Amino acid sequence: MADGTASYAPVAADLSDARRRDEADPLREFRERFAIGVDPIAYLDGNSLGRPPKATIERLHQVLDAEWAGRLILSWPERWVDLPAQVGDQLAQTVLGSGPGQTVIADSTTVNLFKALHAACGLRPDRTEIVVDDANFPTDRYLVDSIAAERELTVRRLSPDPESGVTASTLAQVIGPRTAVVLLSHVDYRSGYLADLAGITTAVHEVGGVVVWDLSHSAGLVPMSLDEAGVDFAVGCTYKYLNAGPGAPAFLYVAAQHLSAVSQPITGWFGAADVFAMAASYEPAPDIRRMLSGTPSVLGIVAVQEGLTLIAEAGLDRIRAKAVDLTEYTIALADEKLAPLGASVASPRAAADRGGHVTIRCAGAEDVTRRLVEAGVVPDFRNPDLIRLGLSPLTTTYAEVWTAVDIFARITSRRGFTA
Amino acid sequence: MADGTASYAPVAADLSDARRRDEADPLREFRERFAIGVDPIAYLDGNSLGRPPKATIERLHQVLDAEWAGRLILSWPERWVDLPAQVGDQLAQTVLGSGPGQTVIADSTTVNLFKALHAACGLRPDRTEIVVDDANFPTDRYLVDSIAAERELTVRRLSPDPESGVTASTLAQVIGPRTAVVLLSHVDYRSGYLADLAGITTAVHEVGGVVVWDLSHSAGLVPMSLDEAGVDFAVGCTYKYLNAGPGAPAFLYVAAQHLSAVSQPITGWFGAADVFAMAASYEPAPDIRRMLSGTPSVLGIVAVQEGLTLIAEAGLDRIRAKAVDLTEYTIALADEKLAPLGASVASPRAAADRGGHVTIRCAGAEDVTRRLVEAGVVPDFRNPDLIRLGLSPLTTTYAEVWTAVDIFARITSRRGFTA
Repeated sequence: MADGTASYAPVAADLSDARRRDEADPLREFRERFAIGVDPIAYLDGNSLGRPPKATIERLHQVLDAEWAGRLILSWPERWVDLPAQVGDQLAQTVLGSGPGQTVIADSTTVNLFKALHAACGLRPDRTEIVVDDANFPTDRYLVDSIAAERELTVRRLSPDPESGVTASTLAQVIGPRTAVVLLSHVDYRSGYLADLAGITTAVHEVGGVVVWDLSHSAGLVPMSLDEAGVDFAVGCTYKYLNAGPGAPAFLYVAAQHLSAVSQPITGWFGAADVFAMAASYEPAPDIRRMLSGTPSVLGIVAVQEGLTLIAEAGLDRIRAKAVDLTEYTIALADEKLAPLGASVASPRAAADRGGHVTIRCAGAEDVTRRLVEAGVVPDFRNPDLIRLGLSPLTTTYAEVWTAVDIFARITSRRGFTA
Repeated sequence: MADGTASYAPVAADLSDARRRDEADPLREFRERFAIGVDPIAYLDGNSLGRPPKATIERLHQVLDAEWAGRLILSWPERWVDLPAQVGDQLAQTVLGSGPGQTVIADSTTVNLFKALHAACGLRPDRTEIVVDDANFPTDRYLVDSIAAERELTVRRLSPDPESGVTASTLAQVIGPRTAVVLLSHVDYRSGYLADLAGITTAVHEVGGVVVWDLSHSAGLVPMSLDEAGVDFAVGCTYKYLNAGPGAPAFLYVAAQHLSAVSQPITGWFGAADVFAMAASYEPAPDIRRMLSGTPSVLGIVAVQEGLTLIAEAGLDRIRAKAVDLTEYTIALADEKLAPLGASVASPRAAADRGGHVTIRCAGAEDVTRRLVEAGVVPDFRNPDLIRLGLSPLTTTYAEVWTAVDIFARITSRRGFTA
């Protein structure tokens, strides 16, 4: 399937065909559950910031009025104090395919990754290497460098072909008896490459290492089963496919088997065994709460909860099926309309290797992105020559994709860099 | 003034007197700017969670509808990306009495304190001791222990009389040429003791140390001038006197003179010199943004902004004057009505030594707190025998205080532990 465009049936590349696909979409009614205005005409950046569910806006109003204004501090014991672990459990069940007691919603992805990496390294104190790949999101790479320096570990870097990504076999070249921790992204933020989470986890375990997965670009999009795959740690963000809003708190998963042994250095009161004992010294909570630190963002967590409720209702299998179909359709359109203009698909061509976005490589990508936005099409530019077309199964329509690619073609054509 | 109740004029302890005080309050109109329902009848826990300003609720609706739903990802470059430093500057000017470019709004107080302590220790790499006092908030003490263990520092603990607190002279007993960092709270979360921020800062500098102030219980309540006092680092929370809501992001101040030298270990993309360059390795921002880590909470930061706007309008001097008057009034009432029942004031009696809450020590404090809440009076219990009466100058009325102390007296009287 990686041999080009031949495996794709030609698309009837007109808008009425796209509209027929939308009519036939089993998830079509979910779009009405989101607050969607007339602009932009095509929003293809839900993998950076998902649209707001109407229920989330209503719920936030309720929290502001009834819980904050109405019950004030009493809402902490009544409703809020257990939210990080409660909504963590909901996320585990809905998105991670894992059991309760292993997940919290808290802090940013960055902070959670910092804690997870420290906790993971702490499980292999005698090992000296930490592995990351060059295609990983900057924060992930930066944190590996920071923690390696602090703990005197050597960083081993993988440089896979960005359009194929890390596999168990490419990983085998750099892991071994010195490997403490491997940090990888489930879906590559640039290419959209979907890694083999279970196979790679097994490969890391075979050399005695611990794996940390960044699920930011797969959570809420790709069905997974962290418990079954034996994943040790995972983190991810909630403002993409979970639609929890700008800067909403992230999630952190620690496999139950590790919970009694892990520690993390940001020791705040919400991670203590008894939050309100105000004890003389820190005793970590016996459970997943030990990964918490400060006072959690209530508005952020309830937004996560509403996003999860929608995902659960739609079902991850249906979401994944639509993601596959939307990305296939996007690639076919791009091959037909953009490739002749010199803009090529830079995402995996096999659906099984692909997350929820399709990336186009083209000259002048930053300028093209600006022109697309001016024309009412919102994709995402990624330095230096990539344009991501993010497809959110609950809100993106085939008509949006058709319109976006059509305008993309007109813009690049007008710019004159045809092949 | 520390010799008991003699310095207080007797209060005309009836509700009509309290109402006359409310009539004469120059800040009385500010209460109408908050969303306040009929319950509770007396809310004396604004120092745990401040009430919501009406403008904040309106602003959040606007962000949800116009910015998130309306502009989607485009709001990041248009409005959101600079919020941490922009609102940080607003907080610096309004609350910290300090210049721009030294403050950000981000993360939780815990996470910011973790970063500030690491950054502070990094400025004194050859020194071996870190100082904290036993009365400090648990998170502060826990973090000092965590960071000391990580950096192989010795923790020196101060155990001041909790009702008087840390002074430059008590501090002198434990600081010296080995002192790297001193972490103290400006206002003690239990007693309400207000430390001499400028004097202690000078004392720490005299031995060559670096000071980190936790301003959680003074920000928005006590005028201060961090620049003039020469403070090195400060952190604090925004959901108390800044009314930014449950779990709103905290602030972090780093004196300009240190900015080029400080580093912190949670190296996420928002702290990088060019956030969107997606660089091969981490290069910290040249400015205060280097203290940032992950994607900031937009809803939280705009709530901080609205709270600050109210504070600026009221003016910190008027806020402080009312805090002094409210606490004097509360102490006088407590002396008159509670002391004969065996419940004593456990806060400093000199107004200059006191923040915004008055703490009562009494037998069965947890049970008394429960009964108070049932009767519509909301204070805060602090383990094991303290009840905090938090007084928020912009929202707390004298009538609320009178009612609270009156009901407090009836409850303790009924319990039968009179002196």
